[in-house]
Amino acid sequence: MYRPEIKVVDCTVRDGGLMNKWQFDDAFVTQVYQALNKAGVDYMEIGYLSSESAFSREEVGPWKFCAEDDIRRVTGGQERRVKLSAMADIGRIEYEDIPDKSDSSLDMVRVACYVHQIDAAIALAHHCMDKGYEVTINLMAVSTVGLRDLNEGLEDLAKSRVPVIYLVDSFGAFYSEDIDLLARKYLERLPGKTIGFHGHNNQQLAFANTIAAIIAGVNYLDGTLYGIGRGAGNCPLELLVSFLKNPKFRVRPLVEAIEAQILPWRQKIDWGYFIPYMVTGVMNQHPRSAMAHMESDKKDQVTEFYDQLTRPT
Amino acid sequence: MYRPEIKVVDCTVRDGGLMNKWQFDDAFVTQVYQALNKAGVDYMEIGYLSSESAFSREEVGPWKFCAEDDIRRVTGGQERRVKLSAMADIGRIEYEDIPDKSDSSLDMVRVACYVHQIDAAIALAHHCMDKGYEVTINLMAVSTVGLRDLNEGLEDLAKSRVPVIYLVDSFGAFYSEDIDLLARKYLERLPGKTIGFHGHNNQQLAFANTIAAIIAGVNYLDGTLYGIGRGAGNCPLELLVSFLKNPKFRVRPLVEAIEAQILPWRQKIDWGYFIPYMVTGVMNQHPRSAMAHMESDKKDQVTEFYDQLTRPT
Repeated sequence: MYRPEIKVVDCTVRDGGLMNKWQFDDAFVTQVYQALNKAGVDYMEIGYLSSESAFSREEVGPWKFCAEDDIRRVTGGQERRVKLSAMADIGRIEYEDIPDKSDSSLDMVRVACYVHQIDAAIALAHHCMDKGYEVTINLMAVSTVGLRDLNEGLEDLAKSRVPVIYLVDSFGAFYSEDIDLLARKYLERLPGKTIGFHGHNNQQLAFANTIAAIIAGVNYLDGTLYGIGRGAGNCPLELLVSFLKNPKFRVRPLVEAIEAQILPWRQKIDWGYFIPYMVTGVMNQHPRSAMAHMESDKKDQVTEFYDQLTRPT
Repeated sequence: MYRPEIKVVDCTVRDGGLMNKWQFDDAFVTQVYQALNKAGVDYMEIGYLSSESAFSREEVGPWKFCAEDDIRRVTGGQERRVKLSAMADIGRIEYEDIPDKSDSSLDMVRVACYVHQIDAAIALAHHCMDKGYEVTINLMAVSTVGLRDLNEGLEDLAKSRVPVIYLVDSFGAFYSEDIDLLARKYLERLPGKTIGFHGHNNQQLAFANTIAAIIAGVNYLDGTLYGIGRGAGNCPLELLVSFLKNPKFRVRPLVEAIEAQILPWRQKIDWGYFIPYMVTGVMNQHPRSAMAHMESDKKDQVTEFYDQLTRPT
């Protein structure tokens, strides 16, 4: 599938950091950066853009903030082909804490929001655009949004200046047919805009759903090395790049980075296909209950978790 | 997707046994059997039907043979809703070693073959039908078969009396678009026959490809508990049953069996998504080189394996 408009966005540090509070060391972030450079990946989402007042640096690592000094320390003095992105959550970043583009190594800011936050997201996105950044809005948890709310949200987004809107399967609840239907709806209701897709792997469908999105006309595609990410994780970047067949991409640097940096984390944190994540995906629920179960001492007592989630209430 | 014609075939013991030489103890096989009964799964493939002369019982467990005594020991005296199946490989079973249906607990024999063995497979399949069994032919490794060979093979199968023909993605190389195309081709060229699908998970597409097969009109669907199976494994049965939404199915017994019997094996053998299996899938190769790498002491040296498989020859 060679379509020059397609952009691949790696979220290894940002979404993977949800599993370890962004406690990746500099060697990790530097090697991921270098691998993405060599692999021809378009964007690296290096973390979140948060105000220092919103989180404590004693609890979370530097990639929850993406301070310019930290970014320069891991990317400075090196060839730069991959663009850098950071995600901004509504309410966790003050406008004045966003640097001007000319003072920042970041190229893109992606504003994540729920449907009831769309107005705030558009305002923040316009602010970032005015500061000089490429900007997207990533509308999360669409699998729980009613049709009327979704239509209204898309109408508001259509009127905005934001050029890229993401369809996000936050709970890993969607089948490929859902993605096909929703992607076509986004394309139709957001004329002139580019659509992106970010999947989760609760039902082992993140990669398949990304392909469904591509076929439907989606052009911004998220992945992470070896699928690292919250809960069941994301679309594995190495699978996506292998699929795309665009001659600009190289798979080998991704495999190298997986060997050196991701496999060691595989021993320490559990992302990927586990029954608790599968159950929240099938039930279309936030993975937080599954993450709590996976972190408890009864991780393998999966029937108990199943009963807890499926019990009639 | 509620379609009454759909039959679900569990291959946990048969395909999972490829990872441990069928060394499952009786408690394992019994609990899988009971779980499938309770879950409403249509068939349990309990192993291979092989002649005693073809393998040594010192090397392989009982489910490489499926002797009637062994089957009765694990299933006897219990409610019986699930039908039992065994797979027969060309050249590993003598005609006279196949019992008459009246002397066997087996309901179905699935004959596995490569395209050059289709004539032998049809003869063996007819022999099994004449002995009273339900019969399928599972044409393996189609991703490496040329178009003319495939068309000729399908022509031969169309002339046979065998009622069910399987499309098999042995190497986990197919994308859903391939499955859609091939499933429609099988349906068109095999009029009056039922089509089945058996996937492998090298690219995390076994479940997605099974859904693509269902949409194309495929009615026999293979899965295994937690995806256990050769190399990257198979379509996870619990995902498939969750998807089908047929009121006859129950997911909970599958989760129970995974907890009690599959998770302990997860500590001992590696099936699922690993880079070596991903690489053979992308390269459309038999997983044997990846399995050897995974069993070696350099399992995590995945770049070396990538180089070995992608080196120009």
